[in-house]
Amino acid sequence: MSFFRSRWVDPPAGVTELESTGLAPGFRAAGIACGLKESGGTDVGIVATDVPGTVSALLLTRNAAAAAPIVVCRDRCDPGSIRAAVVNSGNANAATGEQGYADAVAMQERCADALGLPAREVAVAETGTIGVPLDVGRVIDGIDRAAAELGDEGGGSFSAAIMTTDAGPKRCCVEAAGVTLSAQAKGAGMIQPGYATMLCFVQTDAAIADPERDLRRAVAGSFERITVDGQMSTNDTVLLQATGASGRPLPDGLLDAALLQLAIEIVADGEGASRVARVTVSGAADGEEAERAARAIANSPLVKTALYGRDPNWGRIAQAAGQALAGMEVPELGPEQIEAAEMASDAAEAEVAVDLGRGEAAAHVYFSDLTHEYIRVNAEYTT
Amino acid sequence: MSFFRSRWVDPPAGVTELESTGLAPGFRAAGIACGLKESGGTDVGIVATDVPGTVSALLLTRNAAAAAPIVVCRDRCDPGSIRAAVVNSGNANAATGEQGYADAVAMQERCADALGLPAREVAVAETGTIGVPLDVGRVIDGIDRAAAELGDEGGGSFSAAIMTTDAGPKRCCVEAAGVTLSAQAKGAGMIQPGYATMLCFVQTDAAIADPERDLRRAVAGSFERITVDGQMSTNDTVLLQATGASGRPLPDGLLDAALLQLAIEIVADGEGASRVARVTVSGAADGEEAERAARAIANSPLVKTALYGRDPNWGRIAQAAGQALAGMEVPELGPEQIEAAEMASDAAEAEVAVDLGRGEAAAHVYFSDLTHEYIRVNAEYTT
Repeated sequence: MSFFRSRWVDPPAGVTELESTGLAPGFRAAGIACGLKESGGTDVGIVATDVPGTVSALLLTRNAAAAAPIVVCRDRCDPGSIRAAVVNSGNANAATGEQGYADAVAMQERCADALGLPAREVAVAETGTIGVPLDVGRVIDGIDRAAAELGDEGGGSFSAAIMTTDAGPKRCCVEAAGVTLSAQAKGAGMIQPGYATMLCFVQTDAAIADPERDLRRAVAGSFERITVDGQMSTNDTVLLQATGASGRPLPDGLLDAALLQLAIEIVADGEGASRVARVTVSGAADGEEAERAARAIANSPLVKTALYGRDPNWGRIAQAAGQALAGMEVPELGPEQIEAAEMASDAAEAEVAVDLGRGEAAAHVYFSDLTHEYIRVNAEYTT
Repeated sequence: MSFFRSRWVDPPAGVTELESTGLAPGFRAAGIACGLKESGGTDVGIVATDVPGTVSALLLTRNAAAAAPIVVCRDRCDPGSIRAAVVNSGNANAATGEQGYADAVAMQERCADALGLPAREVAVAETGTIGVPLDVGRVIDGIDRAAAELGDEGGGSFSAAIMTTDAGPKRCCVEAAGVTLSAQAKGAGMIQPGYATMLCFVQTDAAIADPERDLRRAVAGSFERITVDGQMSTNDTVLLQATGASGRPLPDGLLDAALLQLAIEIVADGEGASRVARVTVSGAADGEEAERAARAIANSPLVKTALYGRDPNWGRIAQAAGQALAGMEVPELGPEQIEAAEMASDAAEAEVAVDLGRGEAAAHVYFSDLTHEYIRVNAEYTT
């Protein structure tokens, strides 16, 4: 197993990993360079299917300052019937006003025309610099070229087309119980955009009765359980497309395992991150309390710098949990209640646990450390 | 004016600044070295008055993992009649269990005995390492010696006795309208403790009818409006003592101005901080919303690194505000709504403003930048 490598991911039995540039049957993809990235890197991508009856689910950021493509997806897409997604990296098209909205619509319509689809079946995603007008001419040109290059092995170039400062592509193509699932994600490298965006596209030939339910469940256990710096992007997008052509259902846990592995890769490749930890808070009075305490610990800059410094500093964990539970009666939190020993190790994945001793509820969050490289990346870039 | 130096502080007319080591009439203080600090620095202090009828107010952290001295103050003090406070720096006596509680009680009782006061009129405060048993023998010895050295000019040694990794003392002694007000504070240097504590002691000979009301108002406008890293300490304590001996009231705004200047000094001397900013969020639907957005901006590591990098990155400000208002309808936040130009300057105090365009409410927060020095201080210390 080279993809499912985290200790925290439990794929279903019988999974076979295929070449990660591959796609589920019935899907084609491509990525090309249109010139948005100064590096000349791949920056426009399309993933599409023409299998009739394909169903989909589309989850979008809740940030109130949502970018133009998010608003276009909300306004102008049928989230259950998405056939294609068009993406650029290099410009987030966020805080770009009416022109930005018009540009995102133009992307959607050009892609729809190129593929012979209704516009409402084409999702738009963008990631990159904020507050800068999109060079929509280049993107339109890129869409035409990408549409002409769509292919079965396009998962490679497509995953490159969604990267910003990711250290490498995050993708998989796996097979189990007669179905194939492929996915491409990008995460939290933040130099140029000013902040990161999380994008993920998932394709399968499984038959899925309720894709939104399945996607929400898998996202709740993966992308919604990670934090790099506690910042919610303006552009986050997750798309699941299922053709149903295999006539078989998704094996239990396959979607969940794939998205969790990708989510952990996003944390591991977070801005300046050198390692990943999972904090589990148990003994909470209810789920909301467990969640609040776990997030307070995962987002505490003191805990995150301790993780970087290989310091099993349970005192900082107690303080963060205590802040999350401010004003409540909590049994004393000491070394008996807090397991932080793995923070001292050099393991790439450290386990941290806290027992609040108040009840039965639990929650966990995956997080990265806070390093000099985070400061360098985020302080040295100037708009 | 050397004390009231922030552009954001507006002291009442006619204020005279006295020697900052001085104390309001009727108060005596001292600080000595008992050996808690490895450096041999001053680490036990007492501030006290024997003026009959002195009134007081005592505000304590709401952190659910509160330290032993906080619990002792809650359990065993009369907050309206505090005559003396005993403090150590070097050991926070937090997460120290029953023994820690007993040690804090012993400090209170020894100080009360030394000064001939009932124990309930003695407040206890501690700051320093967490989770380490207090060497209470040294502290008890130190209390005896400090009690023997109390003096009118003890504000100097007392302010040294409450410092941990503060770059310098934070104190004032000012006179206006026939009353004197002195104060000593410490803030956010965090190497040894694992996290910082904010302590402040205020003395005056003014007549104050409702010290708790006045202190809460002043703290709401000062210490509750600052953030270094969004972390609430287990040990935060603010004490106001007023003898009333002058027979005059506090001039309007004097307590507020003194605490705000001290609060800004705590931010400016925050862990690794190189500069301070004030963000004002206006146009919010209500005060809670304004507060939430201002805190989201002030605590965003992306905004804080931009402040460090002299980057007027309004996009990061829009993103943080948008996160705070997730799921709500917000007019687009662009350069017209966000003033961030001063982030690009080298001024020690930068003004940032955001207009949400949703209503009439406003709030502001003072915050520091996030620097390499923060990472160094917090990652390189190992418990």
